[in-house]
Amino acid sequence: MPSSPSFQPRDPGYVERVRASFGRQTFMRFLGAELTLVEPGYCEVRLPFRGDFTQQHGYFHAGTLTSIADSAGGYAGFTLMGADDSVLAVEFKVNLLTPARGELAIARARVVKAGRTLTVCQVDVSTVEAGKETLCAIMQQTLIRLADRPDL
Amino acid sequence: MPSSPSFQPRDPGYVERVRASFGRQTFMRFLGAELTLVEPGYCEVRLPFRGDFTQQHGYFHAGTLTSIADSAGGYAGFTLMGADDSVLAVEFKVNLLTPARGELAIARARVVKAGRTLTVCQVDVSTVEAGKETLCAIMQQTLIRLADRPDL
Amino acid sequence: MPSSPSFQPRDPGYVERVRASFGRQTFMRFLGAELTLVEPGYCEVRLPFRGDFTQQHGYFHAGTLTSIADSAGGYAGFTLMGADDSVLAVEFKVNLLTPARGELAIARARVVKAGRTLTVCQVDVSTVEAGKETLCAIMQQTLIRLADRPDL
Amino acid sequence: MPSSPSFQPRDPGYVERVRASFGRQTFMRFLGAELTLVEPGYCEVRLPFRGDFTQQHGYFHAGTLTSIADSAGGYAGFTLMGADDSVLAVEFKVNLLTPARGELAIARARVVKAGRTLTVCQVDVSTVEAGKETLCAIMQQTLIRLADRPDL
Repeated sequence: MPSSPSFQPRDPGYVERVRASFGRQTFMRFLGAELTLVEPGYCEVRLPFRGDFTQQHGYFHAGTLTSIADSAGGYAGFTLMGADDSVLAVEFKVNLLTPARGELAIARARVVKAGRTLTVCQVDVSTVEAGKETLCAIMQQTLIRLADRPDL
Repeated sequence: MPSSPSFQPRDPGYVERVRASFGRQTFMRFLGAELTLVEPGYCEVRLPFRGDFTQQHGYFHAGTLTSIADSAGGYAGFTLMGADDSVLAVEFKVNLLTPARGELAIARARVVKAGRTLTVCQVDVSTVEAGKETLCAIMQQTLIRLADRPDL
Repeated sequence: MPSSPSFQPRDPGYVERVRASFGRQTFMRFLGAELTLVEPGYCEVRLPFRGDFTQQHGYFHAGTLTSIADSAGGYAGFTLMGADDSVLAVEFKVNLLTPARGELAIARARVVKAGRTLTVCQVDVSTVEAGKETLCAIMQQTLIRLADRPDL
Repeated sequence: MPSSPSFQPRDPGYVERVRASFGRQTFMRFLGAELTLVEPGYCEVRLPFRGDFTQQHGYFHAGTLTSIADSAGGYAGFTLMGADDSVLAVEFKVNLLTPARGELAIARARVVKAGRTLTVCQVDVSTVEAGKETLCAIMQQTLIRLADRPDL
């Protein structure tokens, strides 16, 4: 089986670049989501539960989980892009594995393939309930690099 | 080409049932989303823009569009279910067609196939900017009917 | 609701270009699939049933339906590209709506959005049994245009 | 991070059951695909390249890769079902990571979540060229268990 890719960022300032861009996503701030880990080809976003986040049965709404998964995936890809690039999500697909309940949701995204134009990520979303973590959603996502259009 | 399906709800109280369940989605209320149309196999959800909803460039975050698309699709399917059923999203896939900017986003969901257990929907998400509507995302979604588990 | 896009091909020789490229897909020939309609932003591929095409219950294997849907979508997008472009599928998602049985499968693909780099299509796959057509699968697909790399 | 699931088949005859069902897929035989590994929650299908399998540039057609990925995923899920169950694919999504060239394609499928009704799999498809393996496609797939409808 082919081994997992190991990535070398071409922009040494990738952590600051990713953190600054995440900071401009007002929707992450509105939700109270935090970018808790940034590594080459990898990002983690955490979202503490609030009563405002539910679907009709009181679980995390799929939209909340998708929101942090999409941001985590986008920034996992963005770690490997250049200082003058922007990133946009092209599409994603989410499977909801189990009702998502707990005090925290965690999206962990890793780059599967970083191409010149397109990047593909897989994202796992877990919830933590009473300290026990359960995988509740998985995403497969495609990103596009916009060259020479700095994010800011 | 096969004609579009025309649906006959088996629960005559489907509008009230859908509206009540939508009303329990605290996340829709948190976003300020409104359920603006409920017909057999069809739902429409509208979301007025707020500065809190953006990704890094100031457009609607994909998570906001996905949230209303997922709820619109879920309730389009729910219109055709029984009085004692619940609905859950199994999975969805979203293509983002263009940066989503404007004063309003509208998700229009229609049932493509209503099976005994699974229902498949297509959802169009448009934004309205200065009165002009632009299709900005499309979703393909699968729902599951939970029989004899009333939503409330 | 935004009206359906109407497309103007930039290459007047798009029909011949699409037909020639389809003719190079040995897999379509191997299956016996035919390209039966080519219009701006639209393609139709037909596949007569053979006993060689089944999954375990005797229906069309999902792989056969996906194969003609992918080619139909790719060439729907290719109708709108330039004389010196190539097209590749980036990703697709297929929902299987009902067991696919009959003497013929038909994939009808239309472009939803033709961007500079990426094109998004929707594809309906029906089967025809005793003259009656049934929608059995739907695809949402993303294509990439490879500029200045003629297909041949 | 939650650890990978380890599965206990409820039908001790799962290997023979899976092999017999795969043997009924005439399309796998037509392609020359082989089921090369069957473990609880895991299946591997191999497809030797033939000149009949190409898209327009001479690579494996996405439909060939999807066909073996869909069968591998379906049977990974089927390993965990009961002796009197059938399995059907509900939907899948495939990302094509790189042009797929080589003398062999290998689909490796693993179950991510085995629910009572629905099962979710991830499938990696690699090609082998001159002994070197390259990941060329990934699939996320949903299956449905049909209870008390034995496969044969």
